[in-house]
Amino acid sequence: MSWLPSLITETPEEGFEIAIKLSRMGVKKTQPDDDARKRMRAIYENDADSLTMVSHVIATNFQTVAAANNYWK
Amino acid sequence: MSWLPSLITETPEEGFEIAIKLSRMGVKKTQPDDDARKRMRAIYENDADSLTMVSHVIATNFQTVAAANNYWK
Amino acid sequence: MSWLPSLITETPEEGFEIAIKLSRMGVKKTQPDDDARKRMRAIYENDADSLTMVSHVIATNFQTVAAANNYWK
Amino acid sequence: MSWLPSLITETPEEGFEIAIKLSRMGVKKTQPDDDARKRMRAIYENDADSLTMVSHVIATNFQTVAAANNYWK
Amino acid sequence: MSWLPSLITETPEEGFEIAIKLSRMGVKKTQPDDDARKRMRAIYENDADSLTMVSHVIATNFQTVAAANNYWK
Amino acid sequence: MSWLPSLITETPEEGFEIAIKLSRMGVKKTQPDDDARKRMRAIYENDADSLTMVSHVIATNFQTVAAANNYWK
Repeated sequence: MSWLPSLITETPEEGFEIAIKLSRMGVKKTQPDDDARKRMRAIYENDADSLTMVSHVIATNFQTVAAANNYWK
Repeated sequence: MSWLPSLITETPEEGFEIAIKLSRMGVKKTQPDDDARKRMRAIYENDADSLTMVSHVIATNFQTVAAANNYWK
Repeated sequence: MSWLPSLITETPEEGFEIAIKLSRMGVKKTQPDDDARKRMRAIYENDADSLTMVSHVIATNFQTVAAANNYWK
Repeated sequence: MSWLPSLITETPEEGFEIAIKLSRMGVKKTQPDDDARKRMRAIYENDADSLTMVSHVIATNFQTVAAANNYWK
Repeated sequence: MSWLPSLITETPEEGFEIAIKLSRMGVKKTQPDDDARKRMRAIYENDADSLTMVSHVIATNFQTVAAANNYWK
Repeated sequence: MSWLPSLITETPEEGFEIAIKLSRMGVKKTQPDDDARKRMRAIYENDADSLTMVSHVIATNFQTVAAANNYWK
């Protein structure tokens, strides 16, 4: 089954979840090893700049998903 | 209740508040622990580059919200 | 009175000023303390990369304001 | 044969793969040496911020591919 | 006289020059002191990552100018 | 002769080459000295994050070129 069947969602909140998924998949496709990613999680989740960088990736993907959904208007 | 019922606002200023909310939610969804985020706040709020990075995330999210509201024209 | 009544301006130059205001407000909303921001100013205004990062935030906000004004055509 | 015959894909998932390809080609065109890139892989694939930066490039390229495909609507 | 009378240019190359001007003005508006900027120039012009960051700001501003000119089509 | 006569290309691949050219010109316009740029090349071409930053600039410029070409549809 596809991890990304569509960009279309009912609500902005669901759209934000897809943006998070896209951001995490960009990491997973680059580093497929679950253990490696778990090890790194302990680092970035306690680093302010790392968290801001993650939020920036989510914001970029949310732009894409929001445009896809015509901003849920 | 949804934390993001809509991207539509009356004014640009309200739109900027949603952009801030989106930026903070990107961090909260990545690091759900309130205490951890509070600890980190004391660091980034006194670091010029960290604050610029936060402003960049807000600017990216404000692009999305402004487009959603057809720039409040 | 609203600090952001509208994104619409007469000229590109005025639009650039709004982009600067949006960028600075992104910092102010994150760090409301004027003295803290003044302390940090002495650091980033003499750091090349910090100034480039600020210019990047202004560029992102200028994209938004320029689109809002249909590029002052 | 072209490595980028088209931006058009059947599905969002295929579109995401093109975004990954564009991101990796941006590195390859800058550093054509396969061995050098392999050496560096061992570094960035175990660094949280490096992986977030890669995900940000993929997100930027995915914006392009998604727009090209009218968001697979 | 305005430093930014218009975003409209005859050619893409002139548009790129406006993108450079916008990027530099973003720095100048943040650090108005010419000597300070000259001092910093000696640093960033010999730092690969600093130059890449500058190119990224120019690319962001070129997006704006290119859209303003309907891509000189 | 202009280094950027047009943004229009026959294929996405040619468009990607223009995006690379725009990215490198952003560096060259900032640091015109060929030897200085050659010296720095030896540094960034062996640094994973530096290469990712370059790929991000190319991705941003490719967005512009792809939109200019209506995504070669």
